[in-house]
Amino acid sequence: MDTRTSPIRPRIQHVQEALQQRSLAAVLVPSSDPHLSEYLPERWQGRQWLSGFTGSMGTLVVTRDHAALFADSRYWTQAEAELAGSGIELVKIATGDSTHHVAWLASRLKAGDSVGVDGNVLGLAAAQYLRHRLDQAGVTLRTDVDLLTDVWPDRPGLPAAAVYEHRAPHAPLARAAKLAQVREAFLRSGATHHLVSTVDDIAWLFNLRGSDVSFNPVFLAHALLDAHGATLFVGEGKIGAELQTLLQQDGVRVAPYAQAAAALAALPGSACLLVDPRRVTLGLRQAVPAAVKVIEATNPSTLFKSRKTADEAAHIRAAMAQDGAAMCEFYAWFESALGKERITELTIDEQLTAARAKRPGFVGLSFNTIAGFNANGAMPHYRASAESHAVIQVNKDQGGLLLIDSGGQYLGGTTDVTRVWPIGPVSAEQQRDYTLVLKGTMALSRARFPRGTLSPMLDAIARAPLWEQGLDYGHGTGHGVGYFLNVHEGPQSISKVIPEPHMAMEPGMITSIEPGLYRPGKWGIRIENLVLNVPAGTPANGEFGEFLEFETLTLCPIDTRCIARGLLRADEVDWLNRYHALVRERLAPLVSGAALAWLTARTQPI
Amino acid sequence: MDTRTSPIRPRIQHVQEALQQRSLAAVLVPSSDPHLSEYLPERWQGRQWLSGFTGSMGTLVVTRDHAALFADSRYWTQAEAELAGSGIELVKIATGDSTHHVAWLASRLKAGDSVGVDGNVLGLAAAQYLRHRLDQAGVTLRTDVDLLTDVWPDRPGLPAAAVYEHRAPHAPLARAAKLAQVREAFLRSGATHHLVSTVDDIAWLFNLRGSDVSFNPVFLAHALLDAHGATLFVGEGKIGAELQTLLQQDGVRVAPYAQAAAALAALPGSACLLVDPRRVTLGLRQAVPAAVKVIEATNPSTLFKSRKTADEAAHIRAAMAQDGAAMCEFYAWFESALGKERITELTIDEQLTAARAKRPGFVGLSFNTIAGFNANGAMPHYRASAESHAVIQVNKDQGGLLLIDSGGQYLGGTTDVTRVWPIGPVSAEQQRDYTLVLKGTMALSRARFPRGTLSPMLDAIARAPLWEQGLDYGHGTGHGVGYFLNVHEGPQSISKVIPEPHMAMEPGMITSIEPGLYRPGKWGIRIENLVLNVPAGTPANGEFGEFLEFETLTLCPIDTRCIARGLLRADEVDWLNRYHALVRERLAPLVSGAALAWLTARTQPI
Repeated sequence: MDTRTSPIRPRIQHVQEALQQRSLAAVLVPSSDPHLSEYLPERWQGRQWLSGFTGSMGTLVVTRDHAALFADSRYWTQAEAELAGSGIELVKIATGDSTHHVAWLASRLKAGDSVGVDGNVLGLAAAQYLRHRLDQAGVTLRTDVDLLTDVWPDRPGLPAAAVYEHRAPHAPLARAAKLAQVREAFLRSGATHHLVSTVDDIAWLFNLRGSDVSFNPVFLAHALLDAHGATLFVGEGKIGAELQTLLQQDGVRVAPYAQAAAALAALPGSACLLVDPRRVTLGLRQAVPAAVKVIEATNPSTLFKSRKTADEAAHIRAAMAQDGAAMCEFYAWFESALGKERITELTIDEQLTAARAKRPGFVGLSFNTIAGFNANGAMPHYRASAESHAVIQVNKDQGGLLLIDSGGQYLGGTTDVTRVWPIGPVSAEQQRDYTLVLKGTMALSRARFPRGTLSPMLDAIARAPLWEQGLDYGHGTGHGVGYFLNVHEGPQSISKVIPEPHMAMEPGMITSIEPGLYRPGKWGIRIENLVLNVPAGTPANGEFGEFLEFETLTLCPIDTRCIARGLLRADEVDWLNRYHALVRERLAPLVSGAALAWLTARTQPI
Repeated sequence: MDTRTSPIRPRIQHVQEALQQRSLAAVLVPSSDPHLSEYLPERWQGRQWLSGFTGSMGTLVVTRDHAALFADSRYWTQAEAELAGSGIELVKIATGDSTHHVAWLASRLKAGDSVGVDGNVLGLAAAQYLRHRLDQAGVTLRTDVDLLTDVWPDRPGLPAAAVYEHRAPHAPLARAAKLAQVREAFLRSGATHHLVSTVDDIAWLFNLRGSDVSFNPVFLAHALLDAHGATLFVGEGKIGAELQTLLQQDGVRVAPYAQAAAALAALPGSACLLVDPRRVTLGLRQAVPAAVKVIEATNPSTLFKSRKTADEAAHIRAAMAQDGAAMCEFYAWFESALGKERITELTIDEQLTAARAKRPGFVGLSFNTIAGFNANGAMPHYRASAESHAVIQVNKDQGGLLLIDSGGQYLGGTTDVTRVWPIGPVSAEQQRDYTLVLKGTMALSRARFPRGTLSPMLDAIARAPLWEQGLDYGHGTGHGVGYFLNVHEGPQSISKVIPEPHMAMEPGMITSIEPGLYRPGKWGIRIENLVLNVPAGTPANGEFGEFLEFETLTLCPIDTRCIARGLLRADEVDWLNRYHALVRERLAPLVSGAALAWLTARTQPI
């Protein structure tokens, strides 16, 4: 390709000129915003604008004469394509290795050099690590460097969507009760004040929702709590007068978004502030006066939010039934239309979204639908586009597999489900792959474990059936899921990497179980359910402490035509048949006609 | 008891007076030495001398008006007994929670206070964490405080045992080759120098052994390596003239033990020093001039040492056979003597040690033999003593279980094995417990996993059969094992806690697999083998990367009379029968008479 036409080269050059002007040896541009969100408002997609790489994670480092993007295996193919001609080197890192660029920088710079980063989008824990490593190399870190504003002429502004209330009955716990719960927690730890910057924590704590970020019903805000009240720093005009009055009744004052730092700077010297170093930025931390004592601990709201109440669990079960009914409608249509109408990966998204949209309580999708046919299914982060998508066609000579990963936001919960369906005949190799993944899903779904077990410790249980055959998958096994909130939420995570110090499994947590297997260029398999942590009734009767088990929440048939029956043990067949009986029992009252016939056919025992 | 007679109270008072004189609010006394060893020479057992608590782990904190000992669940019963009357509070912490005392201190002290600790026995990583947390509380950390020397009048001196060479063929890799290997690693990381303080790393690197610490064939030393040679800082007179000449031929200079800090202080400003923050003390780190660049990384020797070579593995297999043969001799005697001679837990230690001592290559025990009958077996760290031990007696009305955990140091390897034997009839409940533990041992022994899997991730595989019944054990599932070195070595560890950042499973590592189940006051069960990481021949043939599996190294029958046959699956029975066939095949040539008869009887298929 003609590299002279890349729009990226002049942008990087512009940054390198700015480095020279400011006597910096390098600048870090993380994928991050002032709230350390996973999904960023456009204003903070500067790494994407500067590099051309559109993946959701990846750090850009620009030195005076070089630029490098650090991305993990999920993004290598995509990054290679998107960086072509940009002059930016792709540095391939291991999944979960969030600090490789720091070692890379430390080894390339010399003592006395300075590195710049915008402290307003840098997490406090990440900043502490970065400073420690650069210190050792004799390199100075400057955290007041926002080169983006200089070099990005038409940088988008702040999102301005309205904030609305998440009301009873779907929000069973009142705002005042949640505030009291969090207040009690930070006061007990010895703090007098608590800063919250993460948008899902804020949405949960105040029973408010917004639409500043696609698929995540959140809004940009910071919150500062003290022993008596709370201040919510949010864009002006986003909270209407009526809602402001309601908030005021619960001791919540609304202040302009930009005033959070000034409020921290005004804390009295006698204050003691609790902050979560993984959930506040260095920029806000630096606004705190030196005399103020700071306690670093996980946000109490992060832990409370993760433990769904019994009332929330009841709403989620209802939402799961509606979501499952929508899928029955969709799949009944799909199977009848296949071979008669032209169906593409994009049609699937449209039809499935339309089926969900008819269901009570539906608000929107919880993420972009992934519909991947055959080789497209082998890319875990695939998304069909108008320019590039597959047509779903039966090929009598070659087995076809269709992977659909989708989810909805309902007032009573967030869903996320993956299924794989046969399109025409299925080969013995496809059946074997499918069955091994299903064994992984079932093994973890049936696990029991002590309350407090660190969630990554459960990862190997889902992988063991694949590992035994020398197979594996590159992504995590499961992520926490919010309640009408982000489809990815902490603190728990079932994966090989250990992102947090506190990931103890506690009753009420909702997590996905989604092992997979990907044959590049051929097909992909992933079977995903959401599960709820519930007390386990074990024979030991508590003598060895409390035990938990999973209640499977997701209600959707798991295709049985793809199964290699000989690979399943009797206890596994029993689990599957009991699951299908439950799915049929719960969904049958919500569907009729073709959808009911489909449900009945697809939940027959094997 | 009459608390006035405790010798501990005046010692603590003496410390508190010293605190006042030095304007300190508190002092930390960790269980630690200048080499951060697990087992301490007497000179550094100051925490034990000051508190009276003899457990191998536990931190003492003394403030002006209080003293507290922090210990995990393994030590609660023992600590409660040993601290009685001392005035020292026992603070019960969770296993693996090595920082609880820091939070405790931070919450009790006020801004402006100072805390003292002896930086010469404080790990660098621990010091960094401690300083960070105390900084936040406005508390100053002083690391030049060695109160022990003041208050401990007859403090033991440095151990003076001679150092000897670990020679070929048992040390297959020559000293010069190991030094070259480590040198290449630290030079590649950009360092010019490398400090090693951990005594097992030093013993491995220089092919030297000693006896400064019970059971661990190590000697106290530090080593400083550069691009051309190495200096070994070791007590004068411990290395003979002949050995010094041999060392000199490999570029190793011997210097007095106390000169390590001075050598670091003399490093040129252009130097770059690699240190392992978990394996050097703050004291030595502080001796490094400010101009010297420091790289923090895991000791290269720790990683090399953990990966046994093919030649070492061959010696280990031979040592395991000798160890197994010794156990056949012992158990044959034991079963014939039971009910005829008086056998106590102490007799078992004597007889088993004598059987091992007859075997070629035997040097000593690798740890204190644990022989626990019935209720004593329920204490994982139990040790019989002359004052308190059980007699092994058959009780026809009540099932008896005897747990024996023992191991030897051989020139060609280190062993560690636990078995449980029936003493008279065994109850159905005992059989059920035994079988569930055996299922855990077998499940992990048969696991396959990708090379590089973090070792803690395998922990749940061994626990799953117990977890399913609401049962668990409080200790780790497995520890790394040295080669004629410490029976506990890193970096890998199969447990719920994550002590290291780098615990990737690599070919050649040796680890124990030792799930257990303890019924306090009744019986304890633990079934332990050592296993070697070897490449797995999987059907996927490397398409999904390299996979590892375990070769079981330990050769000793696993009692089949305690098994509840109905709880085992056919594949489990098959594994056990194949293991017993292997044990019989390997040990039969090394035993005769009663031992051979015992071996044959105890390895019959079920």
